[in-house]
Amino acid sequence: MEREAFQAVVLTLFPEMFPGPLGVSLAGKALQDGLWRLESVDIRGFARDKHRTVDDSPFGGGAGMVMRPDVLDAAIKASRLNGTPLIYPTPRGRLLDQARVRELAAGPGVTVICGRYEGVDQRLLEAHGVEEVSLGDFILSGGEIAALAMLDAVVRLLPGVVGKTESLDEESFETGLLEYPHYTRPDPWNGVEVPEVLKSGHHAKVKAWRQTQAEEVTKARRPDLWDRYVKRKT
Amino acid sequence: MEREAFQAVVLTLFPEMFPGPLGVSLAGKALQDGLWRLESVDIRGFARDKHRTVDDSPFGGGAGMVMRPDVLDAAIKASRLNGTPLIYPTPRGRLLDQARVRELAAGPGVTVICGRYEGVDQRLLEAHGVEEVSLGDFILSGGEIAALAMLDAVVRLLPGVVGKTESLDEESFETGLLEYPHYTRPDPWNGVEVPEVLKSGHHAKVKAWRQTQAEEVTKARRPDLWDRYVKRKT
Repeated sequence: MEREAFQAVVLTLFPEMFPGPLGVSLAGKALQDGLWRLESVDIRGFARDKHRTVDDSPFGGGAGMVMRPDVLDAAIKASRLNGTPLIYPTPRGRLLDQARVRELAAGPGVTVICGRYEGVDQRLLEAHGVEEVSLGDFILSGGEIAALAMLDAVVRLLPGVVGKTESLDEESFETGLLEYPHYTRPDPWNGVEVPEVLKSGHHAKVKAWRQTQAEEVTKARRPDLWDRYVKRKT
Repeated sequence: MEREAFQAVVLTLFPEMFPGPLGVSLAGKALQDGLWRLESVDIRGFARDKHRTVDDSPFGGGAGMVMRPDVLDAAIKASRLNGTPLIYPTPRGRLLDQARVRELAAGPGVTVICGRYEGVDQRLLEAHGVEEVSLGDFILSGGEIAALAMLDAVVRLLPGVVGKTESLDEESFETGLLEYPHYTRPDPWNGVEVPEVLKSGHHAKVKAWRQTQAEEVTKARRPDLWDRYVKRKT
């Protein structure tokens, strides 16, 4: 039996942001080719008062507004795909990494709740067992761009999206190291030559050089990854 | 003298991705109001052959293509804003954090190079002293969505973009901790009440509860941030 296309559902107050950049290039072509599907759902459509209110002020005081649990609950119940993880991008979440991206890409799809304002009522997150995921230690104006990033990372791993599977194998994180530097024509450029070894045609030497380069850049820029890499090796 | 609007220049093979989600909501309104400016520059316009080639195969072999240094160099020279950081989003970079976002927002602007394929020729990065910045340990199909995320984070810190400055103060990372949970109406919802303390009207108790909650979630989800927080305090 053929695998069903990966299904992404995004709950948002700004459905017009989707597919946005995911409608272009690699992800856009895959979308057109039916390799994945994307539905953006307007949360505001589930508000029940005449003003279509989706937020209210926080208990305990403080600036900003909080997204109401009842409205989001209705949106989730109407839209969530059975058996797909329900993810809420938030700086309070666990950090997204390539391992989680691979798991998501291996599954049937994902439902993403895009927060705005100060965030989402905590009871809603607990009632639905929502997975809180953070892109990193910076603050966005809402979850939409985080959802775009997460979906882009997932979609490029779906079968048939990236042409040659090799180009997925050697990249950063798949090896536990940051990637080695790349060089192409012209050579020389700006008075600088491409490293001799890369022009030697000696595959073992090229491989060894790239490994050393990957180790050096990881040590210099990401001691955290380097520590993990060394521990895994020993 | 009034401060000039923040200027963002994005070099990309997909200029149609911009402003995209940054043309909507908070960032979009700020763009319309002239609080920041965005120019997307098509790198392909700087190719010099009739096929408008921007990439070539990597020296040393391997899958994928590498963006040529000469084409990007011409694009940078024609488009970079004087005195603005030149940033290349890549998983090989140092991790973006809110401190760097704040620095960028305090400056005159930023120029962003969006990579595609396997990446950019290393000599180009060195020749221009490019700052390599990573969103996190996951791989996107190109730098465009990373640029959107970085710009969104920066733009919301520009003066006048977020209405009340208070709503910037208590959020994650500004205090060194993840944020406390939020609650709003209805109460109860789904059989669960909002925590009593938040309805007590006792500001000191609310503050203490939120602090404890912020510490707990940080300890549980981000031991790395918690360690840093404890060290800073002592």
